[in-house]
Amino acid sequence: MRVPKIVTLLSDFGLQDPYAGVMKGVIFRHCPDCQVVDLTHLIPPQDIRLGAIQLERAVPHFPVGTVHLAVVDPGVGSHREPVVIVGQKATYVGPNNGLFSLALRHDHIHNVYVIQPGRQTHHQPSTTFHGRDLFAPVAAKLAGGLNPQEVGPALAEPLVQLDLDDLQQRVLCVDRFGNVQLGIHRERWQGGMGKVRLGQQTIPFHLTYSQVAPGDLLCLWNSDGYLELALNGGNAADMLGLRAGQVVDYEVVA
Amino acid sequence: MRVPKIVTLLSDFGLQDPYAGVMKGVIFRHCPDCQVVDLTHLIPPQDIRLGAIQLERAVPHFPVGTVHLAVVDPGVGSHREPVVIVGQKATYVGPNNGLFSLALRHDHIHNVYVIQPGRQTHHQPSTTFHGRDLFAPVAAKLAGGLNPQEVGPALAEPLVQLDLDDLQQRVLCVDRFGNVQLGIHRERWQGGMGKVRLGQQTIPFHLTYSQVAPGDLLCLWNSDGYLELALNGGNAADMLGLRAGQVVDYEVVA
Amino acid sequence: MRVPKIVTLLSDFGLQDPYAGVMKGVIFRHCPDCQVVDLTHLIPPQDIRLGAIQLERAVPHFPVGTVHLAVVDPGVGSHREPVVIVGQKATYVGPNNGLFSLALRHDHIHNVYVIQPGRQTHHQPSTTFHGRDLFAPVAAKLAGGLNPQEVGPALAEPLVQLDLDDLQQRVLCVDRFGNVQLGIHRERWQGGMGKVRLGQQTIPFHLTYSQVAPGDLLCLWNSDGYLELALNGGNAADMLGLRAGQVVDYEVVA
Repeated sequence: MRVPKIVTLLSDFGLQDPYAGVMKGVIFRHCPDCQVVDLTHLIPPQDIRLGAIQLERAVPHFPVGTVHLAVVDPGVGSHREPVVIVGQKATYVGPNNGLFSLALRHDHIHNVYVIQPGRQTHHQPSTTFHGRDLFAPVAAKLAGGLNPQEVGPALAEPLVQLDLDDLQQRVLCVDRFGNVQLGIHRERWQGGMGKVRLGQQTIPFHLTYSQVAPGDLLCLWNSDGYLELALNGGNAADMLGLRAGQVVDYEVVA
Repeated sequence: MRVPKIVTLLSDFGLQDPYAGVMKGVIFRHCPDCQVVDLTHLIPPQDIRLGAIQLERAVPHFPVGTVHLAVVDPGVGSHREPVVIVGQKATYVGPNNGLFSLALRHDHIHNVYVIQPGRQTHHQPSTTFHGRDLFAPVAAKLAGGLNPQEVGPALAEPLVQLDLDDLQQRVLCVDRFGNVQLGIHRERWQGGMGKVRLGQQTIPFHLTYSQVAPGDLLCLWNSDGYLELALNGGNAADMLGLRAGQVVDYEVVA
Repeated sequence: MRVPKIVTLLSDFGLQDPYAGVMKGVIFRHCPDCQVVDLTHLIPPQDIRLGAIQLERAVPHFPVGTVHLAVVDPGVGSHREPVVIVGQKATYVGPNNGLFSLALRHDHIHNVYVIQPGRQTHHQPSTTFHGRDLFAPVAAKLAGGLNPQEVGPALAEPLVQLDLDDLQQRVLCVDRFGNVQLGIHRERWQGGMGKVRLGQQTIPFHLTYSQVAPGDLLCLWNSDGYLELALNGGNAADMLGLRAGQVVDYEVVA
């Protein structure tokens, strides 16, 4: 089977500057016939946790062989390693700072390499834009068939991980509709699921939004398998005063 | 002639979440060599009317054979039908809720099919993200040449329509420049066109922005053929206090 | 070597309207197998200067032969000329209003042609959307191999230029991280570079963000070669009260 040449991009670069476009220019220089897909560039600046969450939501839906390039990189130019993570399903290119750790729970890691400047890139990358100077050329060449061993040596230390216990207590993300994603996943949940108690609220469990009256709260397993608080025809996060990353005290009742 | 493999996307998903990117991942799994074009993902949440207006503005400019996937879908998971509308110029994939009704005024409908889960998609789509689980795989396969009959049975009832009389009295949309699009179209307008009376304002008709002094109001037939109120070098909507969807009382004077 | 078929887009159209998507529809009608890359559509309305700055930051990173289509066009429909600028590295399509003048400092201009309606486009383009009716079809055909002479006659007068002395005194741009780009470029700077004096602040020069403590200001040559004011882990523009385009009084001290 032909392996698709797809590179996805996720970053905190925003959309007003041409940073994402510049990475695409570099990618097309090295792999003119690949498909480049924006996941989002609106991760809040330097919010590695939300970047990791959004990657976990997106990565499983791409073809096997996709290259995922992600840059939320407060440590650019310091000692954090620029890496290539070779998984069974996909290849991941970016900083070793935990950004890929949630997505990698759904893959099997074969190898991790450190990108060595000068092997596949300029010898002297800029100190402030590794997305352009290291990650984009490497991701493009990998999409084009480069053997990952050619980017540099194996990573000596373990990959940086996010703290999963800490995540469990937080609002993972809030989408544009105000749907609130919590840290409980259907596949890892042992208990019953009847309702959620959150402060004064008791929120019933349903299968879809329209099973409650407009303006009413509900909870459900969302399309990513996570517990979600929603409000039919409205914004649950606004009503409940919740935002992404916030520590939240709730209880699931059978 | 080779039919182009183009899928356009319009939604109210916003740009902070990876929802649009996820749909592209699914599309490339089923049609690796198609072109995917974002029309906009910033339709206000669940605003079917504005989604329909923006589709009407965009669809006529795409090559014959394009597949237009649109999701503004407050009824997801309820009894509204997921449909494929086969027109002479294009194919339309999304919910049967009126979203395509304005664009379809410029096409000739051959057939309408209901997407039956399990035919071209998973048997058990999520109840909250039909864009990913029903519309994206079907749109991709149609772009790749699937016979539309293969998605499911013909739609038994008529397509849902927007109320055109209601639209006529509203601001259709306001763009980023503050240009105000009203519901009168050049091709359907029988009267003369000299000026527009709106509250205390009398706004003269011209051919282009620079025909009035900077800071002055004008009206013109815009590039979509609709009546537009504009302000040379400024924001007409702010000056006139108008926003998309608002009912507005105006009079065209020969 | 195969010349890549890449068209980049930069505009002040925003992302809520389908204007950028419509241009892509037109481009794919005329060049179905090209790659279209968004640089940004969030240039502030009619801000030619910031459009020119962002083009200069992005253009050098694209493959030789790329077609750059840019529309920040307050004079649309007036007497400003729609042009095609043929450079050694790239081709530029848009209004003759200075928008390309900064990017062109990094290229060598061979020829400039005026787009004559009816040669490669409709005879009667709209008076308000030349991006769709003139620039998109011409850019697509050029990407597909059209001889630029076929768009219309040579431009008789010189290209419009931005005032570089004026630029030198301004904040060129502020990115999403609050990094402030000033008008001094490493390659054109003769003096030493030890620190920057700005009002009460004395800001030391470093190589990368992490060389100062979190919350401290620094200056550096950024990834585009320009002088940048930054704040490790924070927003320098907010702290210093600076915004894009502002005239700023600063002094570089060896």
